[in-house]
Amino acid sequence: MNILITSGGTTELIDDVRGITNHASGHLGKIMAEHCLKEGHQVTLVTTKEAVKPEKQANLTVVLISDVASLMETLKPLVKSHDVLIHSMAVSDYTPVYMTDLDELQTVSDPALLLTKKNTEKKISSNSDVQVLFLKKTPKVISHVKEWNPTIKLVGFKLLVDVTKEELFSVARKSLINNKADFIVANDLTEIDAKRHHAYLVDETNETLVTTKQAIAEMILKRVSHD
Amino acid sequence: MNILITSGGTTELIDDVRGITNHASGHLGKIMAEHCLKEGHQVTLVTTKEAVKPEKQANLTVVLISDVASLMETLKPLVKSHDVLIHSMAVSDYTPVYMTDLDELQTVSDPALLLTKKNTEKKISSNSDVQVLFLKKTPKVISHVKEWNPTIKLVGFKLLVDVTKEELFSVARKSLINNKADFIVANDLTEIDAKRHHAYLVDETNETLVTTKQAIAEMILKRVSHD
Repeated sequence: MNILITSGGTTELIDDVRGITNHASGHLGKIMAEHCLKEGHQVTLVTTKEAVKPEKQANLTVVLISDVASLMETLKPLVKSHDVLIHSMAVSDYTPVYMTDLDELQTVSDPALLLTKKNTEKKISSNSDVQVLFLKKTPKVISHVKEWNPTIKLVGFKLLVDVTKEELFSVARKSLINNKADFIVANDLTEIDAKRHHAYLVDETNETLVTTKQAIAEMILKRVSHD
Repeated sequence: MNILITSGGTTELIDDVRGITNHASGHLGKIMAEHCLKEGHQVTLVTTKEAVKPEKQANLTVVLISDVASLMETLKPLVKSHDVLIHSMAVSDYTPVYMTDLDELQTVSDPALLLTKKNTEKKISSNSDVQVLFLKKTPKVISHVKEWNPTIKLVGFKLLVDVTKEELFSVARKSLINNKADFIVANDLTEIDAKRHHAYLVDETNETLVTTKQAIAEMILKRVSHD
């Protein structure tokens, strides 16, 4: 199969030297790519400069992106030419619009007016004691995947922090339905460390637990191969 | 000599999955550390998990930090035990205080009141179309160095973006005086790419240009050895 994997985390620039980052090392994406390659598949890995990556090898193409806009533009054609998308990248849900100081915020009649402004400085000055950063929602990349290619198998990811299993599964199922995913890999940051990575493969009816990154990779490939 | 080098960029957490990052690869710090080691000095490199680093070797100690608070705590004892500090790390000048939506901002009588609030969520929800992030200034680590150790040689860095040489030198000299630095390495992001790294060693009276990371490393070590 032609398997498309996203990994790492996007960074949305505030100015030329600062950005908002979603932490993601890329380790899981690397292991998934290596497992798919070992099993004889073609892999395209869409990731970031900062993320860890597999060694260069036959049947592996690596494409680097930085922010949500570049991810969107890069993924659209790739989704059309692949059989499976394993979308593990931590995608920023907000992007900076305008950064200002408390003075400007206190003098404006409605703070919403500042959403139409833009910073012209290339490096925002650090003179003020307080800065106020306005952010707007980014487009939901995963929600477009089945529009772009209705037959692609779509594996989504959902990371929450310190929630109950009920909440984790409920949020995963919402994503499953909203994004027409085939299944969602749901995980909780409190259950991930250097040694273990608890994750639940969630579909309409079941939740299957695995406990390491290697097991996540194996379970995903098995499911997309047989479904 | 005992040489302390900082490199990479700090990240200030917004919540458990998002942070504000100062982009810095750590390449210059790595080259400076390698050059100092080759010349027979002891090097302590304070850097981040994400930054590139020299290979493990004799006479090199690597200490990892993440945000400005951990940098401050780590540097204080190290500054006292070293002869030179080459402070090339990109240190965040603002740190998140509180993130909220437009509704709360529009209902509060004075936006400054929100600076006393804190987010309790471990991952801030992405339901709102707009988020507003309040940030406050971080402590200026470099301004404490000569208090901690009046005899340490202090090399500061100043990175600006697309400014005139006059402005670059003027800002560098302000930093030189305010922080009692021995000299400042001043550079402009528009003059840095994979092949070149223009930097000016700025003291009270002179500006000396070098054009590669290796030349920056050699110039700094020569100056701190002979001054």
